[in-house]
This record gives sequence, C-alpha cells and structure tokens, in this order.
Amino acid sequence: MANDKKMVEAITSMEEDFAQWYTDIVKKAELVEYSGVRGCVILRPSGYAIWENIQKELDARFKATDVENVYMPMFIPESLLNKEKDHVEGFAPEVAWVTHGGSEALQERLCVRPTSETLFCDLYSKIVESYRDLPKLYNQWCSVVRWEKTTRPFLRSLEFLWQEGHTAHATAAEAEERTQQMLNVYADFCEEILAIPMIKGRKTDKEKFAGAHATYTIEALMHDGKALQSGTSHNFGDGFAHAFDITYTDKENKLQHVHQTSWGMSTRIIGAIIMVHGDNSGLVLPPRIAPCQVMIVPIQQKKEGVLDKAFEIKSVLSNFRVKVDDSDKSPGWKFSEQEMRGIPMRIEIGPKDIEAGQAVLVRRDTGEKTIVALSDISAAVDTMLVQIQQDMLEKARAHRDSHSYETTDYETFKETVANKPGFVKAMWCGDLACEEKIKEDTGASSRCMPFEQEALSNTCVCCGKQAKALVYWGKSY
Amino acid sequence: MANDKKMVEAITSMEEDFAQWYTDIVKKAELVEYSGVRGCVILRPSGYAIWENIQKELDARFKATDVENVYMPMFIPESLLNKEKDHVEGFAPEVAWVTHGGSEALQERLCVRPTSETLFCDLYSKIVESYRDLPKLYNQWCSVVRWEKTTRPFLRSLEFLWQEGHTAHATAAEAEERTQQMLNVYADFCEEILAIPMIKGRKTDKEKFAGAHATYTIEALMHDGKALQSGTSHNFGDGFAHAFDITYTDKENKLQHVHQTSWGMSTRIIGAIIMVHGDNSGLVLPPRIAPCQVMIVPIQQKKEGVLDKAFEIKSVLSNFRVKVDDSDKSPGWKFSEQEMRGIPMRIEIGPKDIEAGQAVLVRRDTGEKTIVALSDISAAVDTMLVQIQQDMLEKARAHRDSHSYETTDYETFKETVANKPGFVKAMWCGDLACEEKIKEDTGASSRCMPFEQEALSNTCVCCGKQAKALVYWGKSY
Repeated sequence: MANDKKMVEAITSMEEDFAQWYTDIVKKAELVEYSGVRGCVILRPSGYAIWENIQKELDARFKATDVENVYMPMFIPESLLNKEKDHVEGFAPEVAWVTHGGSEALQERLCVRPTSETLFCDLYSKIVESYRDLPKLYNQWCSVVRWEKTTRPFLRSLEFLWQEGHTAHATAAEAEERTQQMLNVYADFCEEILAIPMIKGRKTDKEKFAGAHATYTIEALMHDGKALQSGTSHNFGDGFAHAFDITYTDKENKLQHVHQTSWGMSTRIIGAIIMVHGDNSGLVLPPRIAPCQVMIVPIQQKKEGVLDKAFEIKSVLSNFRVKVDDSDKSPGWKFSEQEMRGIPMRIEIGPKDIEAGQAVLVRRDTGEKTIVALSDISAAVDTMLVQIQQDMLEKARAHRDSHSYETTDYETFKETVANKPGFVKAMWCGDLACEEKIKEDTGASSRCMPFEQEALSNTCVCCGKQAKALVYWGKSY
Repeated sequence: MANDKKMVEAITSMEEDFAQWYTDIVKKAELVEYSGVRGCVILRPSGYAIWENIQKELDARFKATDVENVYMPMFIPESLLNKEKDHVEGFAPEVAWVTHGGSEALQERLCVRPTSETLFCDLYSKIVESYRDLPKLYNQWCSVVRWEKTTRPFLRSLEFLWQEGHTAHATAAEAEERTQQMLNVYADFCEEILAIPMIKGRKTDKEKFAGAHATYTIEALMHDGKALQSGTSHNFGDGFAHAFDITYTDKENKLQHVHQTSWGMSTRIIGAIIMVHGDNSGLVLPPRIAPCQVMIVPIQQKKEGVLDKAFEIKSVLSNFRVKVDDSDKSPGWKFSEQEMRGIPMRIEIGPKDIEAGQAVLVRRDTGEKTIVALSDISAAVDTMLVQIQQDMLEKARAHRDSHSYETTDYETFKETVANKPGFVKAMWCGDLACEEKIKEDTGASSRCMPFEQEALSNTCVCCGKQAKALVYWGKSY
C-alpha cells in the first residue's frame, strides 16, 4: 500500500520569505518540534544527530589540546551569581529563578545557569593551590537557560545545548594563548567539518562578554546576507580571580591570582548550517557532519533482486553512513524526502541499472547525476563526498566574499547597509558613540575587528576622526 | 623539587565506618567536589570520565536496538505534569519550581524535569498518526532534579545525570518485549563492563514507578550487604496514552492507543562501582570502564633512559588507555595515588628492570606482582586486563552469593535481616500489608520478584497464607 497521503510538502522559497523558509526547513526536515513551553524546542532525531556529530568532532579536538570534561550543577545560588559585578549585570535580567523545592519556599533563590563562570570560579578557588595545579582546562556539555523575549529554533531559545570551556592559567600570556587557540579550534572545525568559512576577530567593548577583558569571535555570513556569531572565546584576565579569590603559590612561593578564559559553541551553529547551505528543496548537509551521508533509493523495488542489490551496495559502502529507503513510498516521494532532509548523496538503483551493472549517483548540493559502474561504487562515493564537501565550502566562501563590501565614507556605508545585504568593512575610531550611531542609523552592529587588519583609510567612517581599527559591520541574527 | 607535601591521605577503613569510607573515596579519588547548592555535586574529570565511558557503552548498545537520541526541554509546565494522576502524585512533592523569568513572574510555573514521561507523551501525541509511525524508540541523555531531603554523592542527589528511554508501540506485546529487552541491556552492560552481577526481577506494586503498569529492576549487592537498585525498565501499558490521547490508525484504519515503556540508568551506578569493588586503599575500577587502565610509574626517573623507556612502553601499549606518571612525586606517593584512583594496573620500570629487559606488572585488585619481559609486554597486559575484569566479576558474584540467604519462617527472616547483611530470599503472599509489616519490623524492603522464581515453601514468610512469589528482600540505598 503506497503512502502518498502526506507527500513532502513544498516549502516557502527563500527569495519570497527567508524567515519562513527557515522555519519551514527546521520543521519539515524534522529537526525540531515545538514544545509546550514558549521558546523551548524539542530536538528530534534528525536534529539531535547533527548535534551528536558536532559534539563528537569538537570533543575530540578539545581533548587533543588536553581539555578534560566535567559536570557542574545547573543551579547557581543568587549570592554566587552576584559575586562579579559586570557579569551579574549582563545576565541577571535574563535568568530563570527557582524559588520552591517541593512545597517549600527556598531561603535563597537559585538561578538556572545562563552560563557557568561563577561555578567554575568557585570550584577553582577550592582546588587550585599551587602552580603545580595549573593550568586547569575544563569543559562541560550541558544546556543553559536565558529568558529571551523573542525566540527562533536554534538561533535564540530559552534553553539551548552548548559546551562551555573554562580554563585557569598561571600567566596572562598563557590565558591569551588559550583564548586564541580555542577560537582557532572553532574556526577550523567550522571550515573543515561544516564547510562554513569564518571571519575571526575581536569584539568591540560594547559587544564583548559580561565580565571579559577581551572577547574573540567567529562570524559567518548567512545566505540572506545577515551575520551570525558562531562561537566566542573570552579572555577574563584576572578579574574573576580577584572577585572569587582564586590564587596559587608560584615557584618563588608568592601568592598570585590566576588568569582565566572561557569559550563556547552552541546548537546555534545548526542554524548556520541551515542558512549557509540550505536551498529551496530543503536542508543541505555537508558530508562530514551529515548523520546519513548516502540514501539508497531502490527503483521498482518489488522486482526481484532490486532490494537485495540495494542492501548489497549498502554493505559495500560500510565505510560511510548509508541507509536504504525501503519504505512503501514512491521513488519520487523518497527523492523529495532525501532532499528535504539534506542527505548529501542519493544512489538510485533499479532493474535496468542492475542489468547494466551500474547505479546513478545524485549530488544533493548541485543535483548533478553521475552513472558509475557498481564495481567502482565505493571509490566513486568517496571521491564524490570529498568533492561535495570541498565545493560547499568554496560556494559558501564565494557567496561571502561577493557579499562583503568596503566603504570609506558614511553615505556609501549607509547606502550599502540599506541595499546590499552582507558584511560592510569600514574603519572605526574606537568610540562607543560612533558604534551606537551606526547601529541607530543603519541597524548594523559591529561584528568584529578582524585579526587580519587592513587600512581602508585613515579616518573613522562615521565621525572622520583618526581610525583605530578595521571593523566588519552587518545586520545580524 | 619533590611534592611530598600533600601525601595521599589514608581513608577510613570500610570495616570501621562504611559510609565514611565511601565519602572518603569519592572525595580523595577526586570523583566529585561539593558545590554551593545543597545536594548538588560537581563531577570532576576523574568522575565524569567514568560517566563518559558508561555513556559510550550504553549508547552503542541502545543504538544497536534502533534507539534514536533526542533532546527535550528541561522545563515542564505544571498543567502538563498534572495530566497523569499517579505520575504527578509520585513526583510533585519533590520537584523544583521556576516561578520567575528575569524580573517577571510567570503566569504558569514550570517544574524542572524530575523525569520526562509527560514531555515524551506530549510529543508522541503530536507526531504519531499511523501504524507506520510506530514504534518510536527515543532516548535522551540529560540531568534531572528531585528535591531530596538527604543526599549522598552519586547515590541520591538533587540533580543527577542519566539517560531516559521512552518508547511507543502498536501492541502490548511489543511494549512488554521492549521493557524486558532494555532491562537485559542494562544487566548485560553491568556484568560485562562494570563486572557487577545483577538480580533481574519485577518490582512489587508498592515499589513500582509512578504511573507504570509494571516495573522491572536490576539489583546489585554492595560490599556492606545493602542492595542498590541499579536500573529500571517500566511498562506503562496504555495508561499514559489515554491520559495524553496518543492514538494511531491501525492497518484496518481503526483508531488505537499506543503502548509505552520507559527505562533509565543514572550516575547512581558509579556508586555501585565504588561499593562493589572498592577496598581500603581506595577505588578499584574494572578495566573495561576505567578511563585510565594502566599507569606506568618510572623508578629513579632522573636516571638516563628511564623516562624514555617509560614512554616507549606507553607507545607499545597504544591499544590500551595508558598514562605515564612523570610528575616530581616519589614512587611511593605515585603508587598510593594510582591505587586511590582505582587504576586497574601499574607498571613499574626502573634502571635494573631496563638492564634485565623486564618490567613489573602490579594488579590493583589483588596487589599481585608479575615480572614480564619487555618483549612480551603488550600481550601480558592484554591477558592481565582480561583476567582482572573476569576475576572482579567472579569475586563480586561470590560475595553476593555468600551473602544471599533463604528463609522460610518469620523468626529466622527477622534474625537474618538483623544479623546478616545481604539479600534475604523468602516467599510472599502478594499483600501490601505483609510488605509493609516486614519493612516496619526489619527495615528490609522488597527488592524484586526475581525472574528466576523458586518455591522455598508454599506459604508467605510473614503471614503464613498461600505464597504467590519468591521475593528478594534487603536493606537498600
């Protein structure tokens, strides 16, 4: 019995309504389902499997730099949250408060962690004594809660999954080195695994993390020309160490404060995958992150030998993540579903193919079809998946580069932000006033001061005074 | 400079004070640190790494049975929690309530999940339509919160890490099969990986899960003769399906309710590892779960060639999880630390060993020393780790069997519970009254009605009426 009842429904085109296109994909590719709590989504198997692959890749990269995983409580006593002034000002307005346990009112209310700097600082103040205890390179995988007013799946939710690394070092130089090292881990991961090129840079003081000395960021450009902050790494200097009294005795037996960092990447990056690579047929996943890399679709599967051959091909491709769609749906339905779900490659195999000793390989990213001999299929799939991964990165890079603009005067700047979605590069004097004026006039915020600085001119694009840095500006998620 | 300042401190002996011995180990093996919130502990790297290995093993076993991972929100609206009567009565008294988001009071308060049946039911009611959508075999790894009055690390905490599987099936038979299948997954995992033998059985109605039709359990015996419930698997029948209106159309196009299961294992099992295998020198980890399996301790490490040889051995042992302790502590200190941390094997290598082309292998579980030729070391380590794993299981089984008693009259029963820590097997009539009387008279609760039933007599050990089942009784954690 054919199951053509609920055919894959068409999604809104991205040209028509990008926001609706995004929402359609997260729902119809079955990445998320809405829950009964505002702003909290359910990660369904197809969505969570992407996160599992992200975790696996990132976790291995962290451990290769000697990071150890721990788990901290989800509750932070109000008095502990209040210990570092800038930090509490940044987070207190958006935390969820637990006031009752069972039927009893708590003496001190507890916030559900919005981030765990205060807990790690409290731990380090207890377990760090000597220079021999340093560095501490801890990370945890968990969920955090921020009481956001407006929410969108992956991009901004009340609760989201992430990892947060927290390190303590003997010297400022070591902390700075770790801050940059982890930003590079994120950027390399995004390029190599997610096929998303990143701009690496430093946040302005206005945009930096609450309590940080410096915040570094990786910024990606979405298909609609908006920027997405994709991962951050913070150097706290010894500010938290003073607030939490985290000290160690150095080799000369003198008491010193530690220097700290923290760094995080969240399920938000799944939003970036969707908005960088997706198209009007649905999700497009880079092969290296795709939970299923190849979907084998049998044609005329009831004919003798077709399903057997499909499963035979699957077993030949045991080096890859492969499934056979042997459901009772039509091939056309299966094609649409595989496309909607963003599976990087499809193999079509029917009676005629079997007779000819071949199969049809179809690329999800380009739609290109290639006929290959069954005897060569493993090598052909390998080559094609590598090619898809590479082409997706190059396509994303080309899109970003062709949507990055340089401006040196304010009129052109404003016109560019208004009419050309993308990054706008322009010089800045370093004053908060200009940053705020630009935001007010154009809606663009400073994304970062890129590590690769250029001098487009000597003067601030806004006020005309002496320029201090090149800044990437843009509208953002 | 030697670091003998903080020598490994002795722990309380288990004969003197078992509870203090336990607390000493969790603290001195650096498994946990206490946090600022009552009943919430921090899992330090040595503790969390055990959990990571548990996750990896269990997750692979779940996936081999077609289970898919998802992530549900941590908040449950009060109205959703209230939907199934027995369930809410079981959990409402011990949940944490979020009443404020930022500075605003919530219209409906949210509980922090104590378990997620209600969320999974809500999801299934939305996404299950046809028999083609079944079964749903979902699991999530997360933390849950239960507002316990008294807490102990791993055994009972306000927040703990676990996995919770939730499945929906077309038939009652399928649900029953899945319930038993997952109990077997847990029992096999505990025996094969944790070297802990389990009694498998069914909970009495008094002890079953709130809202369940039947609860199956695995019960282990700790070194002090107390039982620990180590994992449970519940068959919900169609009770939740009726409360949450989870229906599907069957092949005859008739509307049916689904049948559901849930099953969970938590960080509590780490408490079992400690209390089954630990000794008065500290933790003893079975090789298959140990984050570090072999610690190489160089003797006279400043002598030329010693450290080189230690690292050479490490690289020869690349199939195992091996570390070299090249810190500036004394060998004696390193031995004590390796023992406290429960690392299954130590390799001692010094100038004389190198000259003789040999090394000394020391088993953590027995203390036995074996001299092996360096040319054979990889095979010798392999054989010894397998032997340790096997011996630890047999030792735990022998301890359990020698602490399991059979009684047929109530005087002997009471005397046994009072004087012989362990399991007491006795017949039961099936009445709650007898179960409650036994608990009141002796402090022992029913652990389970084992799947392997025997008839010790025809009458209930308590009331003398017709017996319905053999029950394992015992004091428990």
